[in-house]
Amino acid sequence: MPSISPSLAAAMADAANAITESLDRILPKSDFPEQKLFNAMRYGVLGGGKRLRPFLVLNSASIFGVGGDCALRVAAAVECIHCYSLIHDDLPAMDNSDLRRGRPTAHKEYDEATAILAGDALLTLAFELLADPRTHEDPQVRCRLVTALAKASGVHGMVGGQMLDLIAETTQLDIGAITRLQRLKTGELIAFSAEAGAILGKASVQHHNALRAYAHDLGLAFQIIDDLLDAEGTEEETGKSVQRDAKAGKATFVTILGADRARNQAKLLSEQAIQHLGIFGGRAKQLEDVARFVVDRKN
Amino acid sequence: MPSISPSLAAAMADAANAITESLDRILPKSDFPEQKLFNAMRYGVLGGGKRLRPFLVLNSASIFGVGGDCALRVAAAVECIHCYSLIHDDLPAMDNSDLRRGRPTAHKEYDEATAILAGDALLTLAFELLADPRTHEDPQVRCRLVTALAKASGVHGMVGGQMLDLIAETTQLDIGAITRLQRLKTGELIAFSAEAGAILGKASVQHHNALRAYAHDLGLAFQIIDDLLDAEGTEEETGKSVQRDAKAGKATFVTILGADRARNQAKLLSEQAIQHLGIFGGRAKQLEDVARFVVDRKN
Repeated sequence: MPSISPSLAAAMADAANAITESLDRILPKSDFPEQKLFNAMRYGVLGGGKRLRPFLVLNSASIFGVGGDCALRVAAAVECIHCYSLIHDDLPAMDNSDLRRGRPTAHKEYDEATAILAGDALLTLAFELLADPRTHEDPQVRCRLVTALAKASGVHGMVGGQMLDLIAETTQLDIGAITRLQRLKTGELIAFSAEAGAILGKASVQHHNALRAYAHDLGLAFQIIDDLLDAEGTEEETGKSVQRDAKAGKATFVTILGADRARNQAKLLSEQAIQHLGIFGGRAKQLEDVARFVVDRKN
Repeated sequence: MPSISPSLAAAMADAANAITESLDRILPKSDFPEQKLFNAMRYGVLGGGKRLRPFLVLNSASIFGVGGDCALRVAAAVECIHCYSLIHDDLPAMDNSDLRRGRPTAHKEYDEATAILAGDALLTLAFELLADPRTHEDPQVRCRLVTALAKASGVHGMVGGQMLDLIAETTQLDIGAITRLQRLKTGELIAFSAEAGAILGKASVQHHNALRAYAHDLGLAFQIIDDLLDAEGTEEETGKSVQRDAKAGKATFVTILGADRARNQAKLLSEQAIQHLGIFGGRAKQLEDVARFVVDRKN
């Protein structure tokens, strides 16, 4: 069992339920002939998961008193991006994974073409959600959200990181290159999630920077633990295919540092992440707790 | 030779050059390890093409006196969306095409994984371009552009249409279903391109509607001719694989109406499109000419 505090566990479960309900409302249902596409989109985003990124959006927003539908819509947009990336990453031409969150991956449940299109549609939907006046009354804020999410998830962010990850299958990366890979592949979207509250709340530059710094350390800690779970976890525990890195012969934090040093590094990053939140007094308690959680998690 | 007027030919060539230069400036170059991704994005958008959608953006914008970098950036965003959709549509899991604009398709020139990611990155870049203050000083206008482009290219637009197109390979559609398919697959993005000028120029509802009506007729005419070129053209003339619909056993405007009636229908739609432009007096001359061109084109 992960050593997650009961209050954090409850808060994360509440946030996960809220975001799942929100996505269920937002995502199109259809009896059009193309309903298979709508179903595949829903399959991709409603299949559970920790909802870490939405949790960061909701809790960074609450620091600045932004709540309700605004933060939920931004959280839904981030989750659309995250889930589209999982659908595309799982494709045969990419990681070729059959299992995700304990269920068949989208292209196994549907087919490759539908999975590609469902990913494209979710990616597009994310920006439609952000630009909608219901997300924030100030169009300047909505444009900032679109810009920040596009940068975090595009060629200089998540997609660039995924490309590096493919290159890593045939090139031995050093620790610096792996750190950059992970910052792009997962770090930038996690950073956006934490910064989104500051954008919604029109926060000061210092508050923006504190949340970004927190999220970058958190994201790296999260990824190191991901590598550890891939190396040491079981399919039953993690709900996804494991030892994929070892099978692909990829260098990871664990293969380079070893399991013990990697775990220590993750803990150090987690502590450092919490220190960045000092600027908020006690108002970022949930974000502090989540930094502890990511290094203790078992899936 | 297509019976295209010399002035339209020159205007289209000018617009195509301007948009290619703009995309060349905008698109990332890199000596990062992931430069293959940057190269594939550039390959996907800098390989020529008629640049019909950018032409519509530039010329609808000029009706309202909007020029220069604003219109070019919107044109570039539309072309990023169009080119990403070609890259993904050409994939083996989709249309499995080897040839596009007389060159190998992106996944043949690079590989499938890189092609998927290049498409994702171009899709994301389109929204980054629109949300940037350089596209328009008013964030309300930028949000409207993001919303309209997302709707035109997402599940209720282009991606939904592509799904219908896949379904059409195993289901016989009637003329109504094919019309809806084509409206989604190509019509909505063409409609956005023509409407973008009205959004940039903060035009009246009547002007918006006239441009949308024009573009819907134009888009359908364009598609009927596409079906005719696929049925009757050669690979040399069109620069892409032909008779794909026949090989896939797909119903098209041509298989249902026959070539002659299909061509007449396209001409009728073209004339109707031009009539919608009456509201602009003589200020939409290029858009009128392009409606004549699309039914006369040979590739």
